[in-house]
Amino acid sequence: MKIPKIRPYVLEGLRYAFNPKSIAVVGASRHPERVGWNIIKKLRDDGYVGKIYPVNPRAYPYTILGEKVYKTMRDVPEPVDMAVIAVPFFLVQSVMKDCVANGAKIGLVITSGFKEVGAAEREEEITHYCRNNNFPFIGPNLLGLGSPHTKLNLGFMPYLPLEGNVAIISQSGANLLAWLGMSCVQRLGLSMFAGLGNMADIGFPEFITYAGEDKNTDVIALYIEGIQSKEEFVKACKQVVSKKPIIAIAAGTESARGKSAAAAHTGSVAATNEEYDELFEEAGIIRVRTQQEFVDVAIALSMQPLPKGEWIMITNGGGSGILAMDEFARRGLEPLEVKDFLQFQMMLYAGPVGSPLNPIDLTGMAVWEVYKQAIETAISNPEVGGVLVSVCPTSITYAEKIAAIVYELSKKYKGLDKPIIGQFQGGDECDRANTWLKDRGIPSYLNPERAVAAIAALSKYSEIKGKKK
Amino acid sequence: MKIPKIRPYVLEGLRYAFNPKSIAVVGASRHPERVGWNIIKKLRDDGYVGKIYPVNPRAYPYTILGEKVYKTMRDVPEPVDMAVIAVPFFLVQSVMKDCVANGAKIGLVITSGFKEVGAAEREEEITHYCRNNNFPFIGPNLLGLGSPHTKLNLGFMPYLPLEGNVAIISQSGANLLAWLGMSCVQRLGLSMFAGLGNMADIGFPEFITYAGEDKNTDVIALYIEGIQSKEEFVKACKQVVSKKPIIAIAAGTESARGKSAAAAHTGSVAATNEEYDELFEEAGIIRVRTQQEFVDVAIALSMQPLPKGEWIMITNGGGSGILAMDEFARRGLEPLEVKDFLQFQMMLYAGPVGSPLNPIDLTGMAVWEVYKQAIETAISNPEVGGVLVSVCPTSITYAEKIAAIVYELSKKYKGLDKPIIGQFQGGDECDRANTWLKDRGIPSYLNPERAVAAIAALSKYSEIKGKKK
Repeated sequence: MKIPKIRPYVLEGLRYAFNPKSIAVVGASRHPERVGWNIIKKLRDDGYVGKIYPVNPRAYPYTILGEKVYKTMRDVPEPVDMAVIAVPFFLVQSVMKDCVANGAKIGLVITSGFKEVGAAEREEEITHYCRNNNFPFIGPNLLGLGSPHTKLNLGFMPYLPLEGNVAIISQSGANLLAWLGMSCVQRLGLSMFAGLGNMADIGFPEFITYAGEDKNTDVIALYIEGIQSKEEFVKACKQVVSKKPIIAIAAGTESARGKSAAAAHTGSVAATNEEYDELFEEAGIIRVRTQQEFVDVAIALSMQPLPKGEWIMITNGGGSGILAMDEFARRGLEPLEVKDFLQFQMMLYAGPVGSPLNPIDLTGMAVWEVYKQAIETAISNPEVGGVLVSVCPTSITYAEKIAAIVYELSKKYKGLDKPIIGQFQGGDECDRANTWLKDRGIPSYLNPERAVAAIAALSKYSEIKGKKK
Repeated sequence: MKIPKIRPYVLEGLRYAFNPKSIAVVGASRHPERVGWNIIKKLRDDGYVGKIYPVNPRAYPYTILGEKVYKTMRDVPEPVDMAVIAVPFFLVQSVMKDCVANGAKIGLVITSGFKEVGAAEREEEITHYCRNNNFPFIGPNLLGLGSPHTKLNLGFMPYLPLEGNVAIISQSGANLLAWLGMSCVQRLGLSMFAGLGNMADIGFPEFITYAGEDKNTDVIALYIEGIQSKEEFVKACKQVVSKKPIIAIAAGTESARGKSAAAAHTGSVAATNEEYDELFEEAGIIRVRTQQEFVDVAIALSMQPLPKGEWIMITNGGGSGILAMDEFARRGLEPLEVKDFLQFQMMLYAGPVGSPLNPIDLTGMAVWEVYKQAIETAISNPEVGGVLVSVCPTSITYAEKIAAIVYELSKKYKGLDKPIIGQFQGGDECDRANTWLKDRGIPSYLNPERAVAAIAALSKYSEIKGKKK
């Protein structure tokens, strides 16, 4: 199958897909808990207010969840913005013809039983037909798609994620599901989400281009098991990364087993680790390695400005400082060398037992006033590019008090446009402080290594933007 | 200062330190919120039931929190099991003499202002005196020490950790604090914990030996910034690792900055990354790299038996399977090759869309009955060394139901003595499922990479034990 260049009618279709005023559900069911019933139920439960047309000759002339059922797409009284297709695989082709007849803007094929089970021909036939008729479709073998901004939850996602500005585009439904769950708990706000399924018609390049233009999206996060055309992929990314950062996990790259699992999963051919490194470097993508780093890095990029230079770490824990420095080094990042007057100032806060060098160790004796002075001194110093505030709560250092100070100072020095990252390590009180800060736009993490991963991504994007200029 | 061989009187002192029937607090204060008051308050609040003797000539002849104050250690009416020393640094030496006169079994020096601020001579003088008088002491510059088993919380720890079987011995107070906090939230049960401070008299070798003999301890977890004697360290570890696994983070190894931060912090000299690799290999230590991995790996080793061969992964998420396989490869671990009859059986559960190869992909259609059959088939197969059960909750796969099945089957097949690890990825319901399983002795993690880190540690310890035989 030829990999198309970016097609304007597909981008227009995607605009309808994420902001549909009307949705036809082909394969709608009258039986509760069936897929074709659940889709409609979920749409309504999650607050979708547009028109819904259930379609199913076997459910005609009844209603489903109060909506009148239509026999086929040809009977639906208006061209719909999106047709969701959840019929057995052998019916998909004829449904596609009906969709074209209806004038539907885009199709979403949930049905599986195509390339992922070896039936590539079946998939290509449908793709061929749809492309000839300028009818774009997402899938098949698709888990879900939606946006909390439009209260759209199509597919198998149990709930809508937190509203925000990160677009997740994933070749894995399971990981997409996981990230939607983590979205709520870990405060990763999403603008849109899509499980791509087999990418028969629409692949990464057009999704990336669409997300690049989407006004709610500031960060694009990709989960990749295989790329169809490196050229189109790189081209699409390059046009976006000067405006918005793109992060990606390339999965199935570490072993033959991972590759074959990826092939079995979505039927796509994975590249090697080194090929991805090169590809991502060329495309201007920030590569992340783990499911958790994906979330942590997306949060940082979605909330904070880019660093204006090297980072300073302020902590009351010598040990957390050292773990952070180790992670800086592992990521090839040089923290700020603190010297001269800044060093002198920090000496006053660190006292004889602490350290005025980076990491600034305020010691376990640091009360909130000392933290406040040290953060304020750091952020207002022109040599400081970004500030990592690390806190290990003690009986004299309260997590919530330091969190409040970090927030207060972030507002006070907003004009300097410097990034601030929090890191509260410990028990419940730390989980609460980290969440409290994230709810106020300041990324904050439990472990020093996670905070530094986020910092590295901010610095990397700064470098990428610099190159693009 | 000469590094001593393992000294029996020190081991005896440590037994008293973690199980004291009487504690003298030298530098006790009548003023609430002062360190010398807080120590006593915390001991009582956390449930310590032994005798407490406050000591302070300036608080004599009053009482502190209901306890009669003594002028000096010489006035305390019995030889105490432990003397906690929280006086200004220039008084420590004379207090030590009083402790010897009292016949105290061991000292705990919280006071700072020694080697960590460059005053090595002051520290050596005291150490010399104490060693000559067979009076062992922990510290100085120490954050805390205790055990939830004896309700002992000495120092600055805000609360006692969860009771369990992991001993944490840490050169960093801040990280120790963090792990105690995580202990409660993430269910890392501890047998004892110690912040070593400057290790003037007692260092890693004797603590490791003591923990090796401690009946409540099954796993020893070390945070290391520098080792005084490689020979003694290796010797101590070697005598323990055939009975109990030892895990360790070596911090400050990645960069000059990390090393100098470590030196500033505890005044110890760090080795390079490669030196630690060699040292740990020789000592039979499982090396972990991050603050989170420290917790995750300790939990696995503390709860599960060792694998009997290679691992199988059962999942309903293709994507989580691939991320896990990548992590297996990154850690140089080969998962089980599923073939023959086991492959045939798994084919029945995976269906046409899933995969009967490792990772077993039951697909998003997997209901709990399918999970149950697949897990049961895997665990009872003699080729399977350990089972990783990964779950991505959907509208038909409930986290709590699968968690209940994992627990049920772990009990049913307890006799096979095979490890089971859970991995529930997603939102709140997954956090709850992971916690629920850990509360029942089954390690369970949010991310595939974290689960595989735990698995790698179990396999590594299996290898270490094999070598020792």
